[in-house]
Amino acid sequence: MAPYVPGEQPLPGEKVVKLNTNENPFPPSPRVLEAIRNIDGEQLRRYPSPKADAFRDTAASVHGVSADMILAGNGSDEILAIAMRTFLGPGETLAYPDPTYSLYPVLAESCETRVVTVPWETDWTLPVDALLGTSARAIFFANPNAPSGTLVPRSRVRDLALAFDGLVLVDEAYVDFADDNCIDLVRELPNVAVCRTFSKGYSLAGLRFGYAIAAPALVAEMNKVKDSYNCDAIAIVAATAALADQDYARGTWSAVRAERKRLSVELTRRGFAVIASQTNFLLVSCPGGKAAEQYQALKRKGILVRYFDKPGLADKLRITVGTAEQNDALLGALPG
Amino acid sequence: MAPYVPGEQPLPGEKVVKLNTNENPFPPSPRVLEAIRNIDGEQLRRYPSPKADAFRDTAASVHGVSADMILAGNGSDEILAIAMRTFLGPGETLAYPDPTYSLYPVLAESCETRVVTVPWETDWTLPVDALLGTSARAIFFANPNAPSGTLVPRSRVRDLALAFDGLVLVDEAYVDFADDNCIDLVRELPNVAVCRTFSKGYSLAGLRFGYAIAAPALVAEMNKVKDSYNCDAIAIVAATAALADQDYARGTWSAVRAERKRLSVELTRRGFAVIASQTNFLLVSCPGGKAAEQYQALKRKGILVRYFDKPGLADKLRITVGTAEQNDALLGALPG
Repeated sequence: MAPYVPGEQPLPGEKVVKLNTNENPFPPSPRVLEAIRNIDGEQLRRYPSPKADAFRDTAASVHGVSADMILAGNGSDEILAIAMRTFLGPGETLAYPDPTYSLYPVLAESCETRVVTVPWETDWTLPVDALLGTSARAIFFANPNAPSGTLVPRSRVRDLALAFDGLVLVDEAYVDFADDNCIDLVRELPNVAVCRTFSKGYSLAGLRFGYAIAAPALVAEMNKVKDSYNCDAIAIVAATAALADQDYARGTWSAVRAERKRLSVELTRRGFAVIASQTNFLLVSCPGGKAAEQYQALKRKGILVRYFDKPGLADKLRITVGTAEQNDALLGALPG
Repeated sequence: MAPYVPGEQPLPGEKVVKLNTNENPFPPSPRVLEAIRNIDGEQLRRYPSPKADAFRDTAASVHGVSADMILAGNGSDEILAIAMRTFLGPGETLAYPDPTYSLYPVLAESCETRVVTVPWETDWTLPVDALLGTSARAIFFANPNAPSGTLVPRSRVRDLALAFDGLVLVDEAYVDFADDNCIDLVRELPNVAVCRTFSKGYSLAGLRFGYAIAAPALVAEMNKVKDSYNCDAIAIVAATAALADQDYARGTWSAVRAERKRLSVELTRRGFAVIASQTNFLLVSCPGGKAAEQYQALKRKGILVRYFDKPGLADKLRITVGTAEQNDALLGALPG
């Protein structure tokens, strides 16, 4: 079995400009650190709330849904794994557009679930008809997508979900940097689940906290499959504080979008073909297709970006949008 | 599918003497809180160490094994789930002595793994021959066992592992309160895995952190199956600080053992039949078999203990050893 390969992590103390794993370049809200510092021994000694009740209440209020539509997990990776185990048995089929988040086939393999992939249509349009033709029990995709950075319009996701009997899981890991999202579809349709994470928009990749928003019946099924205490007491407190501080988080999203625009312009000027992004990263085709060489050249200069040695991606790099200073370092290290 | 039912949790602010979910009655080491308060935004913003390297190094040093023999997880429940998914496919068989930790069949069902249970022999002796006769691919058991509190001698575990081809997983959640453990077997035998948790001995049930100790080949296989970032940065720091402060933890274990002895004597005096325990709880048969009534009577007085309405357990209560004050409250609430 081929494990999921996470982006490289520099050794402690190693000085690099790290633009390879799509963290938010800004620190989390000061209220998160304050909440963590107020943790006491009694909260640690006792088992946590099995369903992260305090978080569910806050998320319900922020998203305008009921608390029984929220499922909290140990990172959105765990939410994806729970959804897979809940809705896809051995031998059943998961369909997804390709390429998308490379964890899906790894999770499917660990559940002995079959996988059918369908190529994206031109310009990263969701291949609705082809996905419907797969006789899958569930369809997963990242929206905005990784590694393309593109967003499928909500109306098109709705068309898919209306025509499909099984679960449509919309993995909105990067949605905080986008112009739209699919939460309205969850309110309307019983077979749509939206998955969120604190790793990107809330600057808490170290925390491992994610959640699903879905109809109460879907959440109830997933609750039966999750580990009984899947979220720790500190993560619950920290994620709740982060979500409650929308003003702070929105400030980081605006700053990332502004830098994304600048970086797109500057990379285009240097001969890179940049796909319009709705995320905190850019997928760029390198001049002359020489992505592997460019990746190595940047690495030698202490700048980490992501290179996928895969069909359709081998001429491209995925570059996380950093702070202005980090982006300047990247631009300064590129030829031209 | 029947989900695992965790022990009841009082509502926030509710005043109860909580002796039902086997938490350590003492707070965690002050060094744990100090480590948590020193967390900075940068540690939260970035993805954590995928394999919890700092923790692995400390655990290796404390247990006298190499770091590649340590697998860290989001609570020992996640370690059990990872072991199940790694070593037991759909249709394959897990065997365990019954009764033991009631999560095993729940995890097995979620993997579509068959389960064969074998009753414990008289006086909670491990039924080695009967387990070997099941043609299982893996054998799991808690040692010390829950809910009996009894310990299978290391030599008997060794006999089982030597005669068995598959994985023997020794779930040592309660071992910190016992007189012996099976780590030596891991060094000697390639098919034994020991599973540990911080929820009991280290007073960190709120944290969700556990680990396995096993031969490097077993750990390598489980690493392929685990989520890529399964432990959060705060939990890694806190668990590492807790494990490094052995003196503090041992102090709590001694205090629990002293109270366990006192509580056993006092309960016996009141007509309860007490099984000799190597854990931080006691399984006791109630006078006249009236366990359900006793459970309800204690609950009305604000004292929570655990009652299992199951064959072989319906006349018994499982009582967590609390602080001297909590145990006095329990004893004062009992008749006689």
